[in-house]
Amino acid sequence: MRTDNPTAYDRLAARFARIATIDEAIAMLGWDAAAMMPPGGASARGDQLAVLAGLAHGLLVAPAVADDLAAAEAAGDDPDPWRAANVKLMRHAHLRATAVPADLVEAEARVNSACEKVWREARERSDFTLVRPLLQEVLNLVRQHAAALAPVLGLTPYDALMDGFQSGIGAADLAPVFRDYEAFLCTALPRAEALQARRGEPLVPAGPFPAATQEALCRRLAGRAGLEPAYSRLDRSAHPFCGGTPTDVRITVRYDEDDFSRALLGVLHETGHALYERGLPPAYARQPVGMAAGMAAHESQSLIIEMQACRSDAYLSWLAPELLAGFGGEPAAYAPANLGRLWRRVGRGCIRVDADEMTYPAHVILRFRLEQALVSGDLAVADLPGAWHDGMVSLLAVAPPDDARGCLQDIHWYEGAVGYFPSYTLGAMAAAQLMGAARREVDGLDAALAQGELRPLVGWLRDKVHRQGSLLGFNDLLRAATGKALDPTDFEAHLTARYLT
Amino acid sequence: MRTDNPTAYDRLAARFARIATIDEAIAMLGWDAAAMMPPGGASARGDQLAVLAGLAHGLLVAPAVADDLAAAEAAGDDPDPWRAANVKLMRHAHLRATAVPADLVEAEARVNSACEKVWREARERSDFTLVRPLLQEVLNLVRQHAAALAPVLGLTPYDALMDGFQSGIGAADLAPVFRDYEAFLCTALPRAEALQARRGEPLVPAGPFPAATQEALCRRLAGRAGLEPAYSRLDRSAHPFCGGTPTDVRITVRYDEDDFSRALLGVLHETGHALYERGLPPAYARQPVGMAAGMAAHESQSLIIEMQACRSDAYLSWLAPELLAGFGGEPAAYAPANLGRLWRRVGRGCIRVDADEMTYPAHVILRFRLEQALVSGDLAVADLPGAWHDGMVSLLAVAPPDDARGCLQDIHWYEGAVGYFPSYTLGAMAAAQLMGAARREVDGLDAALAQGELRPLVGWLRDKVHRQGSLLGFNDLLRAATGKALDPTDFEAHLTARYLT
Repeated sequence: MRTDNPTAYDRLAARFARIATIDEAIAMLGWDAAAMMPPGGASARGDQLAVLAGLAHGLLVAPAVADDLAAAEAAGDDPDPWRAANVKLMRHAHLRATAVPADLVEAEARVNSACEKVWREARERSDFTLVRPLLQEVLNLVRQHAAALAPVLGLTPYDALMDGFQSGIGAADLAPVFRDYEAFLCTALPRAEALQARRGEPLVPAGPFPAATQEALCRRLAGRAGLEPAYSRLDRSAHPFCGGTPTDVRITVRYDEDDFSRALLGVLHETGHALYERGLPPAYARQPVGMAAGMAAHESQSLIIEMQACRSDAYLSWLAPELLAGFGGEPAAYAPANLGRLWRRVGRGCIRVDADEMTYPAHVILRFRLEQALVSGDLAVADLPGAWHDGMVSLLAVAPPDDARGCLQDIHWYEGAVGYFPSYTLGAMAAAQLMGAARREVDGLDAALAQGELRPLVGWLRDKVHRQGSLLGFNDLLRAATGKALDPTDFEAHLTARYLT
Repeated sequence: MRTDNPTAYDRLAARFARIATIDEAIAMLGWDAAAMMPPGGASARGDQLAVLAGLAHGLLVAPAVADDLAAAEAAGDDPDPWRAANVKLMRHAHLRATAVPADLVEAEARVNSACEKVWREARERSDFTLVRPLLQEVLNLVRQHAAALAPVLGLTPYDALMDGFQSGIGAADLAPVFRDYEAFLCTALPRAEALQARRGEPLVPAGPFPAATQEALCRRLAGRAGLEPAYSRLDRSAHPFCGGTPTDVRITVRYDEDDFSRALLGVLHETGHALYERGLPPAYARQPVGMAAGMAAHESQSLIIEMQACRSDAYLSWLAPELLAGFGGEPAAYAPANLGRLWRRVGRGCIRVDADEMTYPAHVILRFRLEQALVSGDLAVADLPGAWHDGMVSLLAVAPPDDARGCLQDIHWYEGAVGYFPSYTLGAMAAAQLMGAARREVDGLDAALAQGELRPLVGWLRDKVHRQGSLLGFNDLLRAATGKALDPTDFEAHLTARYLT
């Protein structure tokens, strides 16, 4: 990157590579904290992460960045679209980092951490009032944060928050998509429930399923999906995730010896995230333009593997005998059709993380609407439990029996993460849209899935998504890959085919 | 540490804590690279470590450090000896970091890395001439490095190199100690060999010894020695080591299913290192004065556990039935006396890392003399193989059959580590000296060992060594703990009692 006579762009590229390298260290230490660290190391680890984050932040907000950005921009757009996009993303990152005063950032860190701790107790006791004052503080700071970012980014305050998780799509794009989906769900869900009821209960494979057997199988499935052991690890943690770096991806999972489904489908999900990281453009490694295109884009890659590909009839027809061979037991429980019924059930529940793919968006829509109202001030914190209840009744006709299963169930708001929730459903919809395009463009995609073979799909994704890095925003990425911006009808068509026929 | 009106000392303490926190991150990433990282992550990890090391270095050499040090020193020695020592150690670290020009440091990193790679091939082929030119370059830079440090530290060039590994003792202290030992060995070794021959060959426990069984036992022994699982991990790596941080110690080991001895004694050795880190003074965590007192001091803590305590008759009388219960097999092979004969054998060999505790110092003495001659220029690189051969014949009456088993056996010089070797034997001698003092001061120490109980010994070490941090240099630490500076006669008395009676 460096030359004897570095240009402003060269200097910026070197600096952002340095920042990304520190972020890699942070990612590794974060993985270690979740998967390896003994409890006694937690306090020192917090310091290590804070110091490294501070160093990365310092590099990003340094006045030299502003000077070099101005020089690079004054030279006009680089004819290379990657370099041009890279400069825009550097500007964007610099703006986001400099727009918010340091004392606000510090106050947020302090209050979010305090609120998150109290939230754990409040959820335990199912008592929202315990955490209400701190949530109020969190939201006050979130609003200040959004107000500082909005004019600088030219976005509404809520979109400025969303932009921190996924660039290139805002609430105005999302609202009609979600309204459309709500209407779809209103008729589709009862029909799916009726059909499901007629087909009867699936058999549940009988355990126990030794963790070591599950792990060996998970490793094999991840490998067969294209995740190379030379560039990845699979470990255990309380909350599964995909971390690490593009050349050293770390996925984690938790094994339940009574039910292998969660670990197995969880590993396939994280493998989708991992393949995205592995497929990012090496020529732009550690540059903003070479990174994943956002949380929704990331979720589209995990869901296209887990939900679209691996819960398909084709893949299950290959997987079922593999599972039977691995675990043994009653063959009927491992019949592909039975696994399909088991892993593709709809149901109205209170808990987002337990929701099926059809009702999941309803949980997101509720949160999307409520968090906008909280940010705008239209909804007072004190009224959150009631609004949550009413929303659940309206969207899914279920009433949460208590706050623990209502507005206390998710950590996000209580740690200051506002604007994140839409990413889950954006990802699910994008996955369906991408799968539709892949089926049109890739010959024999389902035939390959029926052989347990994901390579044709992953190859297409590599080309259309992974290798694109952050060259395009969310909607532009979809346009380039599928011919259109986000469109809920592909997702609805997928659900119709899977649950209504 | 920070106050509203920070003094120069406060600012320095905050800065050195920051440096230490980065170094903790480096330690964790280094552990990960050895114990966890898939091979594909190596290149990125190298960058991560280099960037973090550069950031820590930048904090250490900043002009503000010189200003604050000058101000702190101008205020006169702090009445608190810990703070006073801390300032001296900060000055020392700053001097060492600023004395060597950045381009020399860079050249060393480049040449050392190149030389180490070629050394692997040279050792493989047992051909010193392959690596000779690069070793010459390494030594040229080492000499420049030593020449830059020496006047600044007020030390000879060789002592300036030794000081990088262990402060407070130099070649002039060491040379008579080593001459004394050489004379001791000259008569003791033949006598020990004769006695050993009369006693006959020990029985060797028959394997295989499953790695999982070894690991469970190692974990138990480390725990019983006082290493808390809440603040430590035991994992596997190709080369055993103790890494991590004082509240999160990571030890590693390698299991040989044909021979459990190496892993078991190796874990006890690393546990000694780990207990030292665990026992450092928390009030000075992340300050120079709160860190371990050097490599020789560290080695004394691993060797006092492994060699002094755990190979003692008392401990073996407890350990032997534990091993028999764990592994099963022929009881006679697990008799304490047999294990003693097996794990306390002397022998003249070519390889340092395979040497017993009596001949090990001869290997170190050879390297100590040769590396001084290489640094001073009295020995030409081309003459190293011959000098090595002659030295081995003179010290142990064995002739290395080739360079692989001669001057190519150790990585140290080939990666630029000159002045390190003495630490091994300084540690062994200090361990014996400390054990002698502990036996005098702690009632029932051997009775406790006979119960597999290390707490009385470790409690004494915690007080006399661990909690002292770097308050004292090597010889002063020994003086405070044992009443005298380094004295080889305690080590010789230990060997006499163990091997000649």
